[in-house]
Amino acid sequence: MKITPRVKEIHSWYSSDSPGTLTNIARLLGTGRLGGTGKLVILPVDQGFEHGPARSFAPNPAGYDPDYHFQLAVDAGCNAYAAPLGFLEAGAARFAGQIPLILKLNNSDSLAKLEQPISAITGSVDEALRLGCAAIGYTIYPGSGARNRQYEDLRALTEEAKRKGLAVVVWSYPRGAGVSKDGETAVDVAGYAAQIAAQLGAHVIKVKPPTEHIEQDAARKVYEVEGIKIATLADRIAHVVQSAFAGRRIVIFSGGAAKGTEGVLEEVRGIAAGGGFGSIMGRNAFQRPRAEAIELLHAVMDAYRAKA
Amino acid sequence: MKITPRVKEIHSWYSSDSPGTLTNIARLLGTGRLGGTGKLVILPVDQGFEHGPARSFAPNPAGYDPDYHFQLAVDAGCNAYAAPLGFLEAGAARFAGQIPLILKLNNSDSLAKLEQPISAITGSVDEALRLGCAAIGYTIYPGSGARNRQYEDLRALTEEAKRKGLAVVVWSYPRGAGVSKDGETAVDVAGYAAQIAAQLGAHVIKVKPPTEHIEQDAARKVYEVEGIKIATLADRIAHVVQSAFAGRRIVIFSGGAAKGTEGVLEEVRGIAAGGGFGSIMGRNAFQRPRAEAIELLHAVMDAYRAKA
Amino acid sequence: MKITPRVKEIHSWYSSDSPGTLTNIARLLGTGRLGGTGKLVILPVDQGFEHGPARSFAPNPAGYDPDYHFQLAVDAGCNAYAAPLGFLEAGAARFAGQIPLILKLNNSDSLAKLEQPISAITGSVDEALRLGCAAIGYTIYPGSGARNRQYEDLRALTEEAKRKGLAVVVWSYPRGAGVSKDGETAVDVAGYAAQIAAQLGAHVIKVKPPTEHIEQDAARKVYEVEGIKIATLADRIAHVVQSAFAGRRIVIFSGGAAKGTEGVLEEVRGIAAGGGFGSIMGRNAFQRPRAEAIELLHAVMDAYRAKA
Amino acid sequence: MKITPRVKEIHSWYSSDSPGTLTNIARLLGTGRLGGTGKLVILPVDQGFEHGPARSFAPNPAGYDPDYHFQLAVDAGCNAYAAPLGFLEAGAARFAGQIPLILKLNNSDSLAKLEQPISAITGSVDEALRLGCAAIGYTIYPGSGARNRQYEDLRALTEEAKRKGLAVVVWSYPRGAGVSKDGETAVDVAGYAAQIAAQLGAHVIKVKPPTEHIEQDAARKVYEVEGIKIATLADRIAHVVQSAFAGRRIVIFSGGAAKGTEGVLEEVRGIAAGGGFGSIMGRNAFQRPRAEAIELLHAVMDAYRAKA
Amino acid sequence: MKITPRVKEIHSWYSSDSPGTLTNIARLLGTGRLGGTGKLVILPVDQGFEHGPARSFAPNPAGYDPDYHFQLAVDAGCNAYAAPLGFLEAGAARFAGQIPLILKLNNSDSLAKLEQPISAITGSVDEALRLGCAAIGYTIYPGSGARNRQYEDLRALTEEAKRKGLAVVVWSYPRGAGVSKDGETAVDVAGYAAQIAAQLGAHVIKVKPPTEHIEQDAARKVYEVEGIKIATLADRIAHVVQSAFAGRRIVIFSGGAAKGTEGVLEEVRGIAAGGGFGSIMGRNAFQRPRAEAIELLHAVMDAYRAKA
Repeated sequence: MKITPRVKEIHSWYSSDSPGTLTNIARLLGTGRLGGTGKLVILPVDQGFEHGPARSFAPNPAGYDPDYHFQLAVDAGCNAYAAPLGFLEAGAARFAGQIPLILKLNNSDSLAKLEQPISAITGSVDEALRLGCAAIGYTIYPGSGARNRQYEDLRALTEEAKRKGLAVVVWSYPRGAGVSKDGETAVDVAGYAAQIAAQLGAHVIKVKPPTEHIEQDAARKVYEVEGIKIATLADRIAHVVQSAFAGRRIVIFSGGAAKGTEGVLEEVRGIAAGGGFGSIMGRNAFQRPRAEAIELLHAVMDAYRAKA
Repeated sequence: MKITPRVKEIHSWYSSDSPGTLTNIARLLGTGRLGGTGKLVILPVDQGFEHGPARSFAPNPAGYDPDYHFQLAVDAGCNAYAAPLGFLEAGAARFAGQIPLILKLNNSDSLAKLEQPISAITGSVDEALRLGCAAIGYTIYPGSGARNRQYEDLRALTEEAKRKGLAVVVWSYPRGAGVSKDGETAVDVAGYAAQIAAQLGAHVIKVKPPTEHIEQDAARKVYEVEGIKIATLADRIAHVVQSAFAGRRIVIFSGGAAKGTEGVLEEVRGIAAGGGFGSIMGRNAFQRPRAEAIELLHAVMDAYRAKA
Repeated sequence: MKITPRVKEIHSWYSSDSPGTLTNIARLLGTGRLGGTGKLVILPVDQGFEHGPARSFAPNPAGYDPDYHFQLAVDAGCNAYAAPLGFLEAGAARFAGQIPLILKLNNSDSLAKLEQPISAITGSVDEALRLGCAAIGYTIYPGSGARNRQYEDLRALTEEAKRKGLAVVVWSYPRGAGVSKDGETAVDVAGYAAQIAAQLGAHVIKVKPPTEHIEQDAARKVYEVEGIKIATLADRIAHVVQSAFAGRRIVIFSGGAAKGTEGVLEEVRGIAAGGGFGSIMGRNAFQRPRAEAIELLHAVMDAYRAKA
Repeated sequence: MKITPRVKEIHSWYSSDSPGTLTNIARLLGTGRLGGTGKLVILPVDQGFEHGPARSFAPNPAGYDPDYHFQLAVDAGCNAYAAPLGFLEAGAARFAGQIPLILKLNNSDSLAKLEQPISAITGSVDEALRLGCAAIGYTIYPGSGARNRQYEDLRALTEEAKRKGLAVVVWSYPRGAGVSKDGETAVDVAGYAAQIAAQLGAHVIKVKPPTEHIEQDAARKVYEVEGIKIATLADRIAHVVQSAFAGRRIVIFSGGAAKGTEGVLEEVRGIAAGGGFGSIMGRNAFQRPRAEAIELLHAVMDAYRAKA
Repeated sequence: MKITPRVKEIHSWYSSDSPGTLTNIARLLGTGRLGGTGKLVILPVDQGFEHGPARSFAPNPAGYDPDYHFQLAVDAGCNAYAAPLGFLEAGAARFAGQIPLILKLNNSDSLAKLEQPISAITGSVDEALRLGCAAIGYTIYPGSGARNRQYEDLRALTEEAKRKGLAVVVWSYPRGAGVSKDGETAVDVAGYAAQIAAQLGAHVIKVKPPTEHIEQDAARKVYEVEGIKIATLADRIAHVVQSAFAGRRIVIFSGGAAKGTEGVLEEVRGIAAGGGFGSIMGRNAFQRPRAEAIELLHAVMDAYRAKA
């Protein structure tokens, strides 16, 4: 692992954490082609659970096999690989030590219709330890009427993970009765989502790249009066990063729905320009043919390295 | 027990599991007339609980007696016998060591009307150990509004079962407000149900043989664009098996409602042709006279052996 | 205690149970005027809680005093005395060792109106041990929308009771949105109720004497096609006993509302003729003057002894 | 403490209890001007929580101070002082050993509107031990749709309190969807409320003095047929005391809303005449000027002593 | 720390508490420019969570950085700094020992719409210990339909905090279906809110400065009959302080929404004149430029010192 001055600087932001957790943060930051730069590209594969296997893997059927994703993450030089329990169990022994793992501790399928969005808890901190993971992952839906249950479950898992020396990655996706469809990616909501995850104790925060939309009336006034810059994606990313403790928490961004290579790279360049710490890129990676996926991931990494 | 190369290959798919759990998977795979082939035929008798005793046992009144089913499973050469707490307690000492047992840990009766389908937890991992079982069984209803409670209970039971060296068998039956009646056996839903069980950490997954129906609009597009083959039962079975980690999880199929012998065998041949790992056959076995039931079960086993 | 061949035979049905639990089953079967016959008459007094003190005890005011019931059960030669926590606490020390006690672990009053029937848990396994009880008692309402909570609470209590060497008596009373008023005592429902209690692990099952009514359409067909005999009370009792593991679980019947002596005895003769294991008789006992109550209980016992 | 023959007789009713609990019952019975008589007058001050501070203490502002009530209870010669956590914490060290304390473990304020009445748990058995209390207090609302939660919480607290050597005082106040406004003090309901508390294991039961009203149709018939006497307050008190295990549980009565001295004393004389064990008198005590309050409490005690 | 006679006097009000908790109360009272006076000014920064980062910090962007608030609280001479988990974790090691910390254990965001107001639990007592805090903080909403859950969670946290030697600060903010918008700051409701927090065991109670409005009809009569003075802010503060155990609990007041300096100081002078123990001042502090904020906080402290 590359423990560079930048990694040490980032470590200084987490000074309340134990050596165990700092070690695992170092593993996330010190691994792969971006190792030591303070930037991250993570491969997440929870779409089989969230969208179903055919929608996720039929475009590139090699992806039905859990080992495929371990190997893809290793070969592309990602910082980490994140997946639900089943996918990690399938390869954790075979790939032990080859790449940091993140166990997604909650998941939703798209078969059930719930009153308010909330994922089921599908893993535990002890399972993450059993599988040799560096971190746990957890998704919250700020804006959901079931918010309290989610925050409280995350709180307990976070306390346990830190006590046991793991890092905590939080997917913060506003959704539910409290936000409109457009509001889910509004810039004020994205900043708020990052703040909530940071206050809940996350080490790494994942949000969606924000749009120019502003959702909350009370917030709109402030954006106007204070002249917060949100015109470009880079502006908005900078605002979201600032919203997570003035840039002193690792904030990464999702790649979103599958799209063309240039579309992906343009967005990544905006994220990098705004000071984003990296990307978590699933469908745009594993639904492409392997060689193409690695090429794209390398291009993404290069975009971040250029700003490191 | 027959620990053949095929059993060892299947073992390799569960490399995160403890020797204790691998031993119990070996017991399931190494017992009975299909022992060592990697194929399974399991006798499940939870219909007394699920449909009531008269509907279940009056057609063959010998079945009121719990011992009958132990003996039937042993004599027919099944891989295992699965039942709720009461039925297993009644014979577990008398038949100790004669056949692997699976304790069904949750059950529904058909007297109550619940808002959303969810079974009651009626057993525990420690009860399974007390009764000498090789595995726990648990039913989830993906598509139910009570999905989260089910997945979370299963998660906790699965973690405990693995820690205590048992295998985990999941009945994955889509049902509830999120799926239509036809959708319960739709091919996309069946594949999704298998994926969910696999991601939740099941070692053995039981689903229903899928129909040609496609339930979810978002899925239909993918099936068409990617040309997923679903015309024959064998095609659909192959797709469901692929949906469970590219065939690296044991997927077995239910026998469904009681029907004629030829109907049963024709379906089994389709399952076998598609690469299904076996059948779990209840009413079609124990509601027939004993000799006829054994004959049918042997024919089913032969169909699987032909494809092993 | 009389450990007769019949008691040993009954013991053989519970071969998964610990010596501790077998001892307590032996206490239930070996005590009183029916000791050793395999038949039971139990005095239950939970009506003070369920219906209120005046409705329960004003007809025979001696019954306001908890000691009265202990003494009545002893003097009548009952197999056991069952009551809620308060009633047992009041006399358990004074009558220690004189008669097996069953602590009713849940109870309902008739003041509150709940959405779906479910009793409150009012005792614990440890309280049963503290009071020297031989068994715990628990009431389920199959057909209630709150079924799962009841089955799951019972499951946990049953596991604990067996681990601590107690026997488990389940009152199985179908009730709630899933069954009609007539259905509560329908013969198909009574058989189903006995099956559920047996599958949940009960050692002793109490149901109401069934009527000729059939509640469920799916069941009616089977009763007709298979020609299940339900014309006489004895027929129906035999069917319910068969429904509880082919007669290999102890099934006893409630005495129902207070009524004339001949009415009670006629019903008991029907139960005995059908192979029922006995009666649990509350109001018909303690609401009569003491001498009359003992006379009636003796007549009931004689009816069972005649069929033992 | 005065351990008189009457105290020993009362002790004999609680023969299932540990020496620790018997000691604390002896403290309640052996303290104050009524010490040793078997009668009790308890000062309860939870109105600050239940009705708000101004409504409770403005009529006699000395009562804002928690110490005031300790001193009042000591100086008036009460058997015990009962209050919520905060009030007891404020003086428990200063008044340690001067008077038995009862920690009220649940409380309601009158700001919130709940669907069905249920108090919040605001203390614990361990807090009661920490503060040197002799007993815990708990309020149930029979008739509430939230009955089960209350009975089950009380059950757990009662088991713990008895295991740790404390006594249990239950306020049993019928209220909620299952009873009419008049029914809350109906004589049948009051007797039923006393019975429920006794069955739940209470050592001391507090109910409201009953009116002549009968609430439940099923009960009315019994009152008429059996000729239960309810014409005078003394009759009704005798019936309620009988309803609590034929007078073998300590049943005390609330003083109700603040009223004139003669009104209070007339009611107390009726309670005493009917065999009530005493009064719990809050607002009628602490809302009067101190000297007047002591005078009234002494008069109340004298009324009970006259019947001891 | 300055352990003055006044601090010792205040200590005497908490005589049930352990030396550990008394030490932490002494830290809160003995620190900063008001150290030893018995008065407190606390800096709370939970607005990032409660209102979002832009609305909270854009007016003074230095506040996006968690370290800013630690330093501001230290430099202004506050008694303590209160914030949610994330904000405290970010600086607790760097500022260890420089100022007492209060971990806010529950928080709400303004994205979700809940049926009845209730915050999510976002921290724990053990986390407070890990971060070196002197106290835990918790917000209750009396008047909310979710009151019971809040009081019960607080109860458990309070018991644990006291057992582990921490102090307990309760934010008591009436809100929800049981109170009108005006009622949230009504004088009767404010007094009631202080009483509830005191009865629940709080050491320090925070309420809003009350208006002259009276919310509850039952209370209005008492205010009129007893002539409770509520005409001036000082009157109302005195009444609220009296409502919390006759002034024997520490009651402090919120600064409310951001406003002009003179508005803030005028209100503070009213609070001080009425005997309030101090202020908790967030937005009025951290949204001003740093020098201006320190100047304001000093003026506030001076106002309290004048009345100490």
